[in-house]
Amino acid sequence: MLRSHTCGELNISHLKTKVTLSGWVQKSRDLGGMTFVDLRDRYGITQLVFNMETNNSLCLEARKLGREFVIQIKGDVIERSSKNKNIPTGEIEIEISELIVLNSSKTPPFTIEDKTDGGDDLRMKYRYLDLRRNPVRENMILRSKVAIETRKYLADLDFIEVETPVLIKSTPEGARDFVVPSRMNEGQFYALPQSPQTFKQLLMVGGFDKYFQIVKCFRDEDLRADRQPEFTQIDCEMSFVEQEDILNTFENLTRHLLKTVMNVELKDFPRMTFDEAMRDYGNDKPDIRFDMKLKNINAVSKNKGFKVFDDAELVLAINANGCAGYTRKQLDKLTDWVKRPQIGAKGMIYVKCNDDGSYKSSVDKFFNQEDLAQWAQTTDAKPGDLILVLSGDTNAVQKQMSELRLEMGEQLGFRDPNVFAPLWVVDFPLLEWDEESARYHAMHHPFTSPKPEDLNKLDTAPGEVKANAYDMVLNGSEIGGGSIRIHDRDLQKLMFQHLGFTDEEAQEQFGFLMNAFEYGAPPHGGLAFGLDRLCSIMGGAESIRDFIAFPKNNSGRDVMIDAPSRIDTLQLDELSLKLKS
Amino acid sequence: MLRSHTCGELNISHLKTKVTLSGWVQKSRDLGGMTFVDLRDRYGITQLVFNMETNNSLCLEARKLGREFVIQIKGDVIERSSKNKNIPTGEIEIEISELIVLNSSKTPPFTIEDKTDGGDDLRMKYRYLDLRRNPVRENMILRSKVAIETRKYLADLDFIEVETPVLIKSTPEGARDFVVPSRMNEGQFYALPQSPQTFKQLLMVGGFDKYFQIVKCFRDEDLRADRQPEFTQIDCEMSFVEQEDILNTFENLTRHLLKTVMNVELKDFPRMTFDEAMRDYGNDKPDIRFDMKLKNINAVSKNKGFKVFDDAELVLAINANGCAGYTRKQLDKLTDWVKRPQIGAKGMIYVKCNDDGSYKSSVDKFFNQEDLAQWAQTTDAKPGDLILVLSGDTNAVQKQMSELRLEMGEQLGFRDPNVFAPLWVVDFPLLEWDEESARYHAMHHPFTSPKPEDLNKLDTAPGEVKANAYDMVLNGSEIGGGSIRIHDRDLQKLMFQHLGFTDEEAQEQFGFLMNAFEYGAPPHGGLAFGLDRLCSIMGGAESIRDFIAFPKNNSGRDVMIDAPSRIDTLQLDELSLKLKS
Repeated sequence: MLRSHTCGELNISHLKTKVTLSGWVQKSRDLGGMTFVDLRDRYGITQLVFNMETNNSLCLEARKLGREFVIQIKGDVIERSSKNKNIPTGEIEIEISELIVLNSSKTPPFTIEDKTDGGDDLRMKYRYLDLRRNPVRENMILRSKVAIETRKYLADLDFIEVETPVLIKSTPEGARDFVVPSRMNEGQFYALPQSPQTFKQLLMVGGFDKYFQIVKCFRDEDLRADRQPEFTQIDCEMSFVEQEDILNTFENLTRHLLKTVMNVELKDFPRMTFDEAMRDYGNDKPDIRFDMKLKNINAVSKNKGFKVFDDAELVLAINANGCAGYTRKQLDKLTDWVKRPQIGAKGMIYVKCNDDGSYKSSVDKFFNQEDLAQWAQTTDAKPGDLILVLSGDTNAVQKQMSELRLEMGEQLGFRDPNVFAPLWVVDFPLLEWDEESARYHAMHHPFTSPKPEDLNKLDTAPGEVKANAYDMVLNGSEIGGGSIRIHDRDLQKLMFQHLGFTDEEAQEQFGFLMNAFEYGAPPHGGLAFGLDRLCSIMGGAESIRDFIAFPKNNSGRDVMIDAPSRIDTLQLDELSLKLKS
Repeated sequence: MLRSHTCGELNISHLKTKVTLSGWVQKSRDLGGMTFVDLRDRYGITQLVFNMETNNSLCLEARKLGREFVIQIKGDVIERSSKNKNIPTGEIEIEISELIVLNSSKTPPFTIEDKTDGGDDLRMKYRYLDLRRNPVRENMILRSKVAIETRKYLADLDFIEVETPVLIKSTPEGARDFVVPSRMNEGQFYALPQSPQTFKQLLMVGGFDKYFQIVKCFRDEDLRADRQPEFTQIDCEMSFVEQEDILNTFENLTRHLLKTVMNVELKDFPRMTFDEAMRDYGNDKPDIRFDMKLKNINAVSKNKGFKVFDDAELVLAINANGCAGYTRKQLDKLTDWVKRPQIGAKGMIYVKCNDDGSYKSSVDKFFNQEDLAQWAQTTDAKPGDLILVLSGDTNAVQKQMSELRLEMGEQLGFRDPNVFAPLWVVDFPLLEWDEESARYHAMHHPFTSPKPEDLNKLDTAPGEVKANAYDMVLNGSEIGGGSIRIHDRDLQKLMFQHLGFTDEEAQEQFGFLMNAFEYGAPPHGGLAFGLDRLCSIMGGAESIRDFIAFPKNNSGRDVMIDAPSRIDTLQLDELSLKLKS
């Protein structure tokens, strides 16, 4: 090794030890008689001291070191005169006897500090320098820990990690596949998996009993803000289970991860039906770090002559605790906020619950004090609280009110990234109506089993059929989802029919799975966690990109290596492909 | 759970316990008054007993169960009258009180037994049934264990597992890339990584210090017997290391894996230079489970009038211990074997070392007893031994003799799959001459550092430059390889020049890496293990396919899911591609 110790491990107990260190020059300070250099590596920072008096030439050399030079030094651990108790190595420094420059460095395009002066684009182009920064590296270490702890936990429960193939078959159902032309099979293509769904089900048919895999998946979608074309799942499947077994297993995995990686004890792990979540939070991934439930005030707001409400399908109110003091300006700002295109509300009504028990609303013309008192009762608003009301079509107003609730939660400081509030949302609808294609789509995927008691509604009221499907939600983000699967060929066939597949299409695309179901497929189910998202929530960051070593930008480009790029005509020829131009 | 216990855990201590089991019908035997069913799951087999007398209807139902039906039963653990001490559950059976058929099964196309009647093609088409067989599942469990033990070991040493991207940039150097057309960047392509080489080096530039990843890699090669288009590497890299540090670290990892997974203690872990390996074994991945070194007998075989030897560049002999008794027929067979096109020898000379101290050779016309005694001395052959001799051009005869040595090792039982003999081969040449392109290629890859003391030969004798490169070899297979890397921009540029890159090409393809070297790249090095191969050797199997859950055949096809396949014109249109036809 080019070092005897790392830059993070030396302390007062090492006094007088002769050491060799290697690392990067974080900064140097020239104080005339002495030159101090902070030497950094992954593990910490150690102060080096060069003395003009005792070793003139070495000190002069040290003065030439620039930021991010890579050096190796030999020296003795000595006690610092002015100690820095904030860092583990702050009581010692190294008196240098030898200095070797291992590599020089140009001045980096941004500072290698926790708070850098580099913008996003620059940091991505020079990601290898960005990775030197503590917060970025710590994110990667967190991710590495989450992965190993997941594996240890599941392996201890006898789960087998199996690698499923990356070069598979394109199945147009669902999102768009990335495809890979096959040179050896002219005119044919592999697809990259959107998930190992069918393979893990085949592993259950194959008697593997408990499977998991931490695996890259791929979706060729138009990238929204926080989506990546390649992402990572913790993918799991179990046989001979019921929904409750899966919820328990992976709830415990989540507890284990939060405990071992973050030292956080998760207490409650409530279960909420999809219908309850939509009713109370307007959202199938509620942030339950705070209450502020959505209240239906149809009964006490309609038929009072206020046309907006009278025409609305649904009038929803929330109680912003203690916000009666919001100024006109604050309320206008909030109204503008809900009227932005991203939210799309037409307007917002408010009721201030005054300290004297009276109410002041933006619709006093239509509603008297008694009316407003009823709203307050429904929303459990007390003097000092602020009631916010939105109205419209059910789907729209639920979505809008859900956003407004989150915004108010943010404003009131209820969304502390160090507080973790997980829950299961269960009993999802099996199907959802797609306006564009004017047919039902699978809400999760076509392999999800309907609840047996709802099977009879598949023909008459498909939208009402519930599935044995569940999502794990953490702090308002879906971090995992799964279902009990269909394991019966006939039921799977029926599902494909209801999803608009002809029998031939179903057989062409998923024949291998339906055939497998004829050879003794066991009841099974599972789920998949989004590792990128899980890490970003555990790490308290907004973006999953912060937890991916080499992320792509919103155009799917890696700006560091400049990919994708043009390829040789020769390569295209070998693949029997031509560019359309 | 649809079970209270697995089919592998019940024993005499569970007598009188009421249990629920789920699994597959392995077989059933109808003995008139009783019907016995072997119920199988991943964990074992439990015998179920249905009694015609005490429960007529249940017993009749049981008689209808076919092989591979999936059933759930409830019953009581009772003691068997005739015990089977060969299996853990052999002392008990279950007296059934309830039987539920969870799924039926068609008769499988081959038997689900350790030794199946299914051929390779059928087993691959119905891989989900093949996976039910114990040996196949045990291979997958071994692989799972190797992976988790690798991760635990490296994580304990502070290695960070980092996921590098799968959608990267095509670089024509080396093997052929699989490419992925980008929809969002018209006319441009991603490539799938042949290894994460450049990314792990960037992680070292990024200060990660110790990196590993178990990662899928891809090569679009014409598939030889035991190659797969996608394969898995244990990929590692460390900073501030010298070669010795890497050898020690991963030699210890290998010891750990053999110990924890196979309960095998690896003793010696010798190091051998490339030149020694070629001289003594004719091969850079020698199987040192047995000795039988190749001996150069040029000095004692040439200039005796035997034209074949006189014309040969190299005459090599091996001593097949105790094989003097080989019959004419055996020797003819061996001669035919070396003359096969795969080996390519023109003929084989033998010398039997008779018990009386005399020699009998196939070239007695040219060599007298004294000559042959010299051969015996050189090969350390004693009475009873058999000397085998091949001759020709150095490269060809080394390769042929290496094959013959392995064949004799096989015939003599020296290649026991339960014996493990690892070694490091070190000091590989930096470059090798490629006849086809008439230029030097990197023997490992362009990022391998030359030995500093050989740098001056780069221009004058490029073929003689040795590299800080090493392979780990186990039982005659290369299971890992790596090198100390170049971390200096100028040296990297020089290397690309020597590999026939123009500066523009080098910058275009690897500019990101060379730029990174300008910002304080630390000295670093690493290696990658082939996980598929490592597992196959640990598991004692010939083929890596036995250790891949869903392998592809030699045409790169997955015959189970029928991939690759044609895709929609719509998909091609979106990618701005046309098929050439």
